[in-house]
Amino acid sequence: MPYYIAVYDVNQKRVGKMLKLFRRYLTWIQNSVFEGELTISQHKRLQTEAESIIEDADSVIFYQLRDELYLERQVLGIEKANKSRFL
Amino acid sequence: MPYYIAVYDVNQKRVGKMLKLFRRYLTWIQNSVFEGELTISQHKRLQTEAESIIEDADSVIFYQLRDELYLERQVLGIEKANKSRFL
Repeated sequence: MPYYIAVYDVNQKRVGKMLKLFRRYLTWIQNSVFEGELTISQHKRLQTEAESIIEDADSVIFYQLRDELYLERQVLGIEKANKSRFL
Repeated sequence: MPYYIAVYDVNQKRVGKMLKLFRRYLTWIQNSVFEGELTISQHKRLQTEAESIIEDADSVIFYQLRDELYLERQVLGIEKANKSRFL
């Protein structure tokens, strides 16, 4: 299944809304960074909902990988998220 | 060459230092997100320098891909970075 890293940079006013939205679909990693698998239709829904929230200079980036296997992750300092894959 | 997405979540006191460090090695994308190619030794140097800055609950994550080709990028809203590949 496609694997996503998603990051957003939005006005303080909309941070809460975005956090709530992204948490519904992906795993919170740190700050405004999320990860997880999404089907094409889940990604489409998340995209549509995110587009309905963003305004002005807000920005959202989805990095899509065909598979999580292509990704190596290296963490310095504190592991903020409690992901089983990190254990 | 290995391709990196790097994100950090550090105390406000150290944000300026981290921004300056990461800009020396990678391209700023948004907020605390950077991208770019690094050789193994460049990555090692960046890692060592980042480790010398972080304290307490600070966190830095490097996502490494064998090649940028594995990555698809989708931007909603404003393109904050001025990367030639986006033109």
